[in-house]
Amino acid sequence: MTKQMNLNVFLSGLGHHESAWRLPHVNPGSNVDVEYYQRLAQIAERGKLDSVFFADIPSIGLHPARRPVERLDPLLLLSAMAVATDRIGLIATASTTFESPFSLARRFASLDVISGGRAGWNVVTTSMKDAAANFGLDAMPEPAERYRRAHEFVDVAKGLWLGWEDDAVVVDKAAGVFADPARIHSLDHVGEHFCVKGPLNVGRSAQGHPVVVQAGSSDDGIGLAAAHGEAVFTAQRTVEEGQAFYRKLKAATAAAGRNPEHIKILPGIVPILGSTESEARELERQLDEFVVLDFGLDQLSGDIGIPVEEIDLDAPLPSNIREVEPGTNSRYELTVALARRENLTVRELLLKLGAGRGHNNVVGSPEQIADILEDWFRQGACDGFNVMPADMISGLSIFVDHVVPILQQRGLFRREYTGSTLREHYGLPVPQSTARAAVAV
Amino acid sequence: MTKQMNLNVFLSGLGHHESAWRLPHVNPGSNVDVEYYQRLAQIAERGKLDSVFFADIPSIGLHPARRPVERLDPLLLLSAMAVATDRIGLIATASTTFESPFSLARRFASLDVISGGRAGWNVVTTSMKDAAANFGLDAMPEPAERYRRAHEFVDVAKGLWLGWEDDAVVVDKAAGVFADPARIHSLDHVGEHFCVKGPLNVGRSAQGHPVVVQAGSSDDGIGLAAAHGEAVFTAQRTVEEGQAFYRKLKAATAAAGRNPEHIKILPGIVPILGSTESEARELERQLDEFVVLDFGLDQLSGDIGIPVEEIDLDAPLPSNIREVEPGTNSRYELTVALARRENLTVRELLLKLGAGRGHNNVVGSPEQIADILEDWFRQGACDGFNVMPADMISGLSIFVDHVVPILQQRGLFRREYTGSTLREHYGLPVPQSTARAAVAV
Repeated sequence: MTKQMNLNVFLSGLGHHESAWRLPHVNPGSNVDVEYYQRLAQIAERGKLDSVFFADIPSIGLHPARRPVERLDPLLLLSAMAVATDRIGLIATASTTFESPFSLARRFASLDVISGGRAGWNVVTTSMKDAAANFGLDAMPEPAERYRRAHEFVDVAKGLWLGWEDDAVVVDKAAGVFADPARIHSLDHVGEHFCVKGPLNVGRSAQGHPVVVQAGSSDDGIGLAAAHGEAVFTAQRTVEEGQAFYRKLKAATAAAGRNPEHIKILPGIVPILGSTESEARELERQLDEFVVLDFGLDQLSGDIGIPVEEIDLDAPLPSNIREVEPGTNSRYELTVALARRENLTVRELLLKLGAGRGHNNVVGSPEQIADILEDWFRQGACDGFNVMPADMISGLSIFVDHVVPILQQRGLFRREYTGSTLREHYGLPVPQSTARAAVAV
Repeated sequence: MTKQMNLNVFLSGLGHHESAWRLPHVNPGSNVDVEYYQRLAQIAERGKLDSVFFADIPSIGLHPARRPVERLDPLLLLSAMAVATDRIGLIATASTTFESPFSLARRFASLDVISGGRAGWNVVTTSMKDAAANFGLDAMPEPAERYRRAHEFVDVAKGLWLGWEDDAVVVDKAAGVFADPARIHSLDHVGEHFCVKGPLNVGRSAQGHPVVVQAGSSDDGIGLAAAHGEAVFTAQRTVEEGQAFYRKLKAATAAAGRNPEHIKILPGIVPILGSTESEARELERQLDEFVVLDFGLDQLSGDIGIPVEEIDLDAPLPSNIREVEPGTNSRYELTVALARRENLTVRELLLKLGAGRGHNNVVGSPEQIADILEDWFRQGACDGFNVMPADMISGLSIFVDHVVPILQQRGLFRREYTGSTLREHYGLPVPQSTARAAVAV
């Protein structure tokens, strides 16, 4: 049998194109409507996809005028989506910089139990300064420090999750014994950032513990992914870039003593889809027309440190832009690299950024999109994709109903779920509980 | 029209009697089954009750052998229950000692939006030492310090919630303007415990913001309730105690400059129900028989500082018990007061504690329970009740199907919901957004 790809859907409110909310058929109120998100999860499940995923930032971000900025808590949404679905995996982003490990490990364990073993945690360290200001920090900690904390945080979370043995809950009604304290283990973690005694007050889920996902492509991010990542979301714009990243991360994972098969690398792809190529081009034209260039220009001006008045929309990026230390501002780096590599005018750059913030955006018919996915996959640039519909509700439906069947016909994607947990969908091993000292009672 | 009572259901896993899980008809697996909790919410809604409520402790607590200790995150459960119901209020406990205000305010705001304005937050400061050890604290902060932090925490949460004006989201597709930044306000809080810039990334709900609930009866607790509480859960064992507490808290609320009608006082009541009194007595006998006295004795021994071997089950509480500073250990205080006031033997004490941890437990037919509720209500001991079924699933069903109709017939409880938000059920005012400086973009 041909190796099959993994497909995750990145749910971004109304769509990954910043002007998706302005399309005539889009209901902007959906952004805060739980039933809408339940419907998206059901559509993804109809396509037998592996999982759906929410990014997250604990702040309002920039430009409330420009696009929807409300973000309901992803774990609460996923809980409501879990009870409306049976198989689809449910992944939420949460930051190790602002959360505390006991609470967060418990919330993810709860989602894992509620969903029957379908939860995943996208571990991020958050680089946005406006998020820091919501948590009493004047500035974001340096990346190296954030990642040191992240490593310890994930260790603690896993330690808490693995503290319950499979058969800890005995439920002996006759003897009056509910659980066996000897099979529920404390953690007693004392580290640089955290002291956590445990045990967790949530037991083992059907998949052992939530799948650990990672999404940073800096060296620190690759280090975290190699140590802990079981799936990785990444932005790669060309097959060659994708291949290089793929080889690098698989090697780093092996070097960390793990099986490189147990980390699934899923580059983002922003499909702008129509039944025909010309329909897709028309959608792209409409979306681009709806971009308010002033908003993007404001943000670009701040990022590159050049006043708006001095930026010419129809010229390349100015050469006298401010320098930024590598690894401290990924949006800046991505923006500048994209403009230079593709030799874009500022206008072209702003439109590309509007369509998926620098992820690989592709325009075409279902057949054309399927060809691109197959090409990346066969050329060893990925294990599958993080699908980012430009316009969420219709883009996801077209992907599921028209692209997925082509992939299935080519033997590149499952026709039916063969498992019921997220680990089973991704082909990941079930982690074993750690035997440790019994909890004191 | 007669004044009507408010009725909340306190959901405690399988029941408030510690041996409920041993009853033949109870499925102990329900404790971690989201569909079970959805069903409980639907039963409560069938009875037109105001709300359901989860207590919470971020630790495993004592004695995993004794009774279910797994506690799924209450907000995740309530989100799944919100989408299975339309009217019932949804209240979760969360601790101001271990959480950070931006995250927690956001999670409650999310539940409030997801549920269409039915969320409530029971603000606690948590006194359990084993919880502290899960958050890097060697010991719990002193009560006064915990409550100082709680006041500031609630101020911050409310400030974040009130930062969005009703009409902040304008959604002008033609102009390309999603929200009006001038109607979304930063908080810029700088205080003793927290610095939080805001604004929140969740907008205003149908009820303005979640209902603030309080459940501590110490002087510090009363201070917090008077300042912020809109509903109060409390343990009162007699009508006289209830009346005294009711007068005291209403007066404190007025003294804090608030309308005493806008705080609803709901003492806990643990009904052990049967169709007839003798059926109820038989259920009580069975529940008591299932109590494993050794577990309770262990805990009591620790609380009072007397070795298990020196405690006589059939004598009153020893007189040489360890002294504890008032306000530092509410379980100790409640236990000792209960034993002394009712002149109980240790065995009787342990059985009473097993049946609702010191809350007012009452045994009888639906008519008898309704009489007790009416009596407390008419005598000015409460605005309604926090109903704590001894055995959750059948106790709640009997309460809804047999006690509620009697109360309705007597004009003491609603026959239909007249509103759709929790504030409307409780008759609470909708808080107004605060006008402040516009968010910088």
